[in-house]
Amino acid sequence: MTKNSVLDIIHSRRSVRRYSGKSVSREDMETLVRAGMAAPSSRDTRHWYFIVIDDAEMIKKLVDGLPYAKMLSSAMHAIIVASDLTQAHGGVETEYWVQDCSAAVENVLLAAQSIGIATCWTAAYPRPERVAFVKEVLGIPENVMPLCVIAVGYSAGDDKPRDKFDSNRIFWNKWDTK
Amino acid sequence: MTKNSVLDIIHSRRSVRRYSGKSVSREDMETLVRAGMAAPSSRDTRHWYFIVIDDAEMIKKLVDGLPYAKMLSSAMHAIIVASDLTQAHGGVETEYWVQDCSAAVENVLLAAQSIGIATCWTAAYPRPERVAFVKEVLGIPENVMPLCVIAVGYSAGDDKPRDKFDSNRIFWNKWDTK
Repeated sequence: MTKNSVLDIIHSRRSVRRYSGKSVSREDMETLVRAGMAAPSSRDTRHWYFIVIDDAEMIKKLVDGLPYAKMLSSAMHAIIVASDLTQAHGGVETEYWVQDCSAAVENVLLAAQSIGIATCWTAAYPRPERVAFVKEVLGIPENVMPLCVIAVGYSAGDDKPRDKFDSNRIFWNKWDTK
Repeated sequence: MTKNSVLDIIHSRRSVRRYSGKSVSREDMETLVRAGMAAPSSRDTRHWYFIVIDDAEMIKKLVDGLPYAKMLSSAMHAIIVASDLTQAHGGVETEYWVQDCSAAVENVLLAAQSIGIATCWTAAYPRPERVAFVKEVLGIPENVMPLCVIAVGYSAGDDKPRDKFDSNRIFWNKWDTK
């Protein structure tokens, strides 16, 4: 462990698409959800839901229905982050719920990385066909909107982190001022 | 430092609204931006911009124009996270840019917490009057959309973290299955 493991974890996390299939304990899955719930939400509405998948049959259904979530077939675990739009600040009218749930997702990804578990964020919202499929297969009610399906598992490979820093993307005090 | 400082930082972070006004170094501000750039983005488009504010006159302008960012007058630093909508996956049509930038914001908040700096996420998008004001005052071009203004500074108080865990918000393998 180095001086600041948070920065290390933030910079070493990356999306993983090849997994070993090794089982993740329910205790660890709950650790990830707890981290998600510690995210900020607009007006502290905490309107999110976390549906944890560790059942092989449900994983198969998700793989069959979600073209961009094929890595679930080796990850074997997933977390769906969703919002009750009747509880979120601004409701369906604004994208506050998207911002809140995305912060929760990032917490899940970093918490996972910190305990040696790999992840991949795959979008459901705003693709209508993916949203409809996820709602149908999980039995999610009308007023709840799934944002994404996070693949969760142990990496099968040796995924190298990438340095994504780009000094052209920072300005100081005004647009275009280096 | 405990066994897993990432989980500690995730759970101890909270929004801070009272700051000491003490100066944050440009090196530390850049550390926060680097953490932001390490977030995932849809199709790895990295379409974000980070405008760092540490000029007292610019802070005053933002305080005067943004009713929900009054804490900037004591924080004295800010980071505006924005997206080039011509570069983001899905462009302006989808909310992918919101998801990507929100993940970057959460990285900034956690990186700050890890080096003893407090933050508060205040929304610009999707409020048209706030977006227009931020674009105008910072000279942000047409194709770039600011998501939020993060207040950054040293806390003036002793802000206690809150346990936001709610077991009613987790389901296993199916909606409503405990």
